[in-house]
Amino acid sequence: MKKIVIVGLGLIGGSLALALKGFEDFQIIGVARRQATVDYALSHGVGDDATLDAAGAIGQADVTVLCIDPKDIVTFLAEHRADFKPGSLVTDVCGIKSAIMEAARVLPPEVDFIGCHPMAGTEFSGIEHAFAEMFRGSHLILTPREDSRQAHVALMERMARHIGCQDVVKTTPQEHDAILAYTSQMMHIIAVSVCDDPMLFTCKGFEGSSFRGCTRVAALDVPLWTQLFSLNAPALTGCLDEFIRNLQDYRDVIASGDKGKLSEKLTWSADRKRQMELPGPDLLH
Amino acid sequence: MKKIVIVGLGLIGGSLALALKGFEDFQIIGVARRQATVDYALSHGVGDDATLDAAGAIGQADVTVLCIDPKDIVTFLAEHRADFKPGSLVTDVCGIKSAIMEAARVLPPEVDFIGCHPMAGTEFSGIEHAFAEMFRGSHLILTPREDSRQAHVALMERMARHIGCQDVVKTTPQEHDAILAYTSQMMHIIAVSVCDDPMLFTCKGFEGSSFRGCTRVAALDVPLWTQLFSLNAPALTGCLDEFIRNLQDYRDVIASGDKGKLSEKLTWSADRKRQMELPGPDLLH
Repeated sequence: MKKIVIVGLGLIGGSLALALKGFEDFQIIGVARRQATVDYALSHGVGDDATLDAAGAIGQADVTVLCIDPKDIVTFLAEHRADFKPGSLVTDVCGIKSAIMEAARVLPPEVDFIGCHPMAGTEFSGIEHAFAEMFRGSHLILTPREDSRQAHVALMERMARHIGCQDVVKTTPQEHDAILAYTSQMMHIIAVSVCDDPMLFTCKGFEGSSFRGCTRVAALDVPLWTQLFSLNAPALTGCLDEFIRNLQDYRDVIASGDKGKLSEKLTWSADRKRQMELPGPDLLH
Repeated sequence: MKKIVIVGLGLIGGSLALALKGFEDFQIIGVARRQATVDYALSHGVGDDATLDAAGAIGQADVTVLCIDPKDIVTFLAEHRADFKPGSLVTDVCGIKSAIMEAARVLPPEVDFIGCHPMAGTEFSGIEHAFAEMFRGSHLILTPREDSRQAHVALMERMARHIGCQDVVKTTPQEHDAILAYTSQMMHIIAVSVCDDPMLFTCKGFEGSSFRGCTRVAALDVPLWTQLFSLNAPALTGCLDEFIRNLQDYRDVIASGDKGKLSEKLTWSADRKRQMELPGPDLLH
């Protein structure tokens, strides 16, 4: 029986182990660092099997999915470069791709690597928050190597369909990181910055879904996001500079009292949003 | 039979007319400006009855709910000051309260006025987007006059329960406007400012729920929000100044490369968010 080994059974790895169960003729094996996590996975059916033995597991894996923090991925690839099964595929799920693709160069030529980023998650972390439906309707981004095997890309696309992703988008690590600084990383900086306002605690009872929607991701995994923001600092600070300029423009028009100008600006921005059409289950909340 | 008259059958007025049906022994009557809206309300059961005759309807209303734009409320109260039924209650649903409470001073002493703001809505507008469940789990904010009748406050609280509100919060118009600048108006300025980024259209396929959650409300009702922002400009610009400072602090720490400092800041902000605990149906998207 073919094997998919998921290294790291946190929120994403755990959800992936749940979502991949029953995928073609693959057995899903989770690798964790703590016995308690292995026990939880075994008792809750997170994957088909679970172990502490990373080297042993990946040596038999046709596909290894690294669901750990960026810097742990870099360390893991270096330490285990010789342990992966020849001809196998190694992939990951993390929100930064240039640094990961760079780190994957340590792998021997007979081991393929395709960067992967499922655009899904919640503000919680840990296997106890994992759920099989996490990836339903989300985008899955792939950054294959120039010499990645087509059979491996096709396999990733079938895995994406099995876990319920809306579509698969292929791009370069550089484009991924530039765009994600805007669509994901900046959303998290916005959320934490809103929560830094002294009014946060006095506003309870006065918040609606726009406030919940904007601040939801502020309760983030600090070690993970510290790495993601730091590894993409130039792109992220560039997005923040642009955003601050756009905010300042609105702030100044509102302060000026020029309703005609304000109405014009709002019409322009609202039209852009309508042209985006981003349907999602959260649209009506 | 007692009557609740809802003036304005847009998204909120229409949803209120649907949600209030069957409330105690009240008949729900909608007032619209266009015959097409009256016809839609009658054929879709939005309320128990609908009419174009505002003066006639409010003359028989025990409760009149003004579900129109702020400046239309000001005009309506002035024009119809003598048409309201003596002893009746007039209320509204709009997102600004100081200006509305001020405008309500034109009412004769025998007509009570209680400012009301249900913290609910969607990015759509018009009666065709109205739905009875809109207010479920949302906060309802009341700004009674000092001399508002307790029976009227109690009636509003029963109406809030009937339409499914999570709770009823009483406050002053000034506090409402100061806090809503932060929890609601600023969320809308954030959303439109994010959409002003040139990267907006190239990012399609790379967005997750944090992006949808933050930008959802950018497709706003321009005339309405132009008024809301303008009527609350000092509070709103103050919030934006604070927010821009907090964003800039994060931007500078990220640019500095000081991961320890960044991790400290993120820990502080994430802890604040966790202390807030804002459960909502949107939490897991």
